[in-house]
Amino acid sequence: MSDDKNEPEEADDLLPGVNIVLIETSHPGNIGAAARAMKNMGVTQLTLVNPKDFPSDQAVFRAVSAADVIESAVVVPDVDAAIAGCELVIGTSARDRRIPWPMLDPRACGEKVIREQAAGKQVAILFGREDRGLTNEELQKCHFHVNIPTGKAYSSLNLAMAVQVICYEILQAHLSKSSAINTDSDEWDMPFATAGDMEHFFTHLEKTLIDVNFHDPANPRQLLTRIRRMFNRIRPDQMEINILRGFLTAVNEQTSKLP
Amino acid sequence: MSDDKNEPEEADDLLPGVNIVLIETSHPGNIGAAARAMKNMGVTQLTLVNPKDFPSDQAVFRAVSAADVIESAVVVPDVDAAIAGCELVIGTSARDRRIPWPMLDPRACGEKVIREQAAGKQVAILFGREDRGLTNEELQKCHFHVNIPTGKAYSSLNLAMAVQVICYEILQAHLSKSSAINTDSDEWDMPFATAGDMEHFFTHLEKTLIDVNFHDPANPRQLLTRIRRMFNRIRPDQMEINILRGFLTAVNEQTSKLP
Repeated sequence: MSDDKNEPEEADDLLPGVNIVLIETSHPGNIGAAARAMKNMGVTQLTLVNPKDFPSDQAVFRAVSAADVIESAVVVPDVDAAIAGCELVIGTSARDRRIPWPMLDPRACGEKVIREQAAGKQVAILFGREDRGLTNEELQKCHFHVNIPTGKAYSSLNLAMAVQVICYEILQAHLSKSSAINTDSDEWDMPFATAGDMEHFFTHLEKTLIDVNFHDPANPRQLLTRIRRMFNRIRPDQMEINILRGFLTAVNEQTSKLP
Repeated sequence: MSDDKNEPEEADDLLPGVNIVLIETSHPGNIGAAARAMKNMGVTQLTLVNPKDFPSDQAVFRAVSAADVIESAVVVPDVDAAIAGCELVIGTSARDRRIPWPMLDPRACGEKVIREQAAGKQVAILFGREDRGLTNEELQKCHFHVNIPTGKAYSSLNLAMAVQVICYEILQAHLSKSSAINTDSDEWDMPFATAGDMEHFFTHLEKTLIDVNFHDPANPRQLLTRIRRMFNRIRPDQMEINILRGFLTAVNEQTSKLP
């Protein structure tokens, strides 16, 4: 809506590093509407996990002038492939889950995304299926969950509307960042582990927990869920994940000597 | 998205007095999508000024569970009829008009609307045609204009998306006014581990790291410092610290079997 002449030229992709990930979307019209909502807010990196009906004329039609976002969208078979290179993963979610997870509201989400994006990091925001949202397994891959507050009478937002609200708050945070001083320090002495590093660590840990008879896959209780939540909360850096992996390898070497 | 049991019952119309006015809308699907966006945010009073195609099955279809908002919508022939009873009128607009007008951003708009709404006033927010927005004459009937910031590459929001963003900010202002929801996630399902618990854990971990030959006290490098920093960052709860201690005990039992 703005076309001031005296502002600096702006790239199409105002916010590189911000990845919108739509998981198993049923209706291609929602993909198109989400692409338009993204580009309106300066976000252009779209990943589609196993979409039901794509490529689709309906998606291009609803994208209107964001057809380029649709054309450059990356299609992947599963969520791990979508987030493998990302250092911060946020999942959109209802508030109530059996195991509480670190929660953000959309405004805090926008601010967090922009702090990381401005530091050159890759950030993924996951949006689930139209009818069921994200699975618990997908939610457990996230560092944070974000919930869009609603009235009680009707709490289910259209998928593209949710993308609009989240991207709106990301752009707001970007626009206010330029004037504000960053008081919150996301600076760290090491790069953070990626989502792919974390999956390798969880696989290694699970195997080791079984080896030492601490975890019985036949009776999992919620052990692995709690462990995932704990280590995603920690957001280990790469040296820390190497320490953890090294400890597990040392345990493996000891148990391998047992008869 | 929330269904907490112990919050007070809420009327469908959480925000009486807030009137969304859509002017000469061309596509009935946009009316339906706008109705859904409104009801999601607790706003239900919809006025349609001279809609091109209404009533419409497409509007009802896109409204999904907000069909009641469509059914109770008031249809009027011109904007004066729509705003006659309103004490505050705000028009959505691009920023540049020949005659500057008092401008609000969406956040300030939400706060202003809620201040008036809470005082029992009728407020109207006007949304223009899909292709041309509001006329200058319509804009000049407004006390304030509101502009949704966008990226430069694509500045034209879908009509229903604009309704979503404005109603989202209205609900945010309402919720922060009443402090009804806890946006800061201090809620957790378990008490946090005490400093004493943490010291016992660190002692146990150090002993285990030595047992499996991962840590050499004669050559400590900064291993224990890094581990302390990592686990203090995690702030484990009591169940989590029990899981960690249980894993270490299981490792100890295995290594004790070695010669």
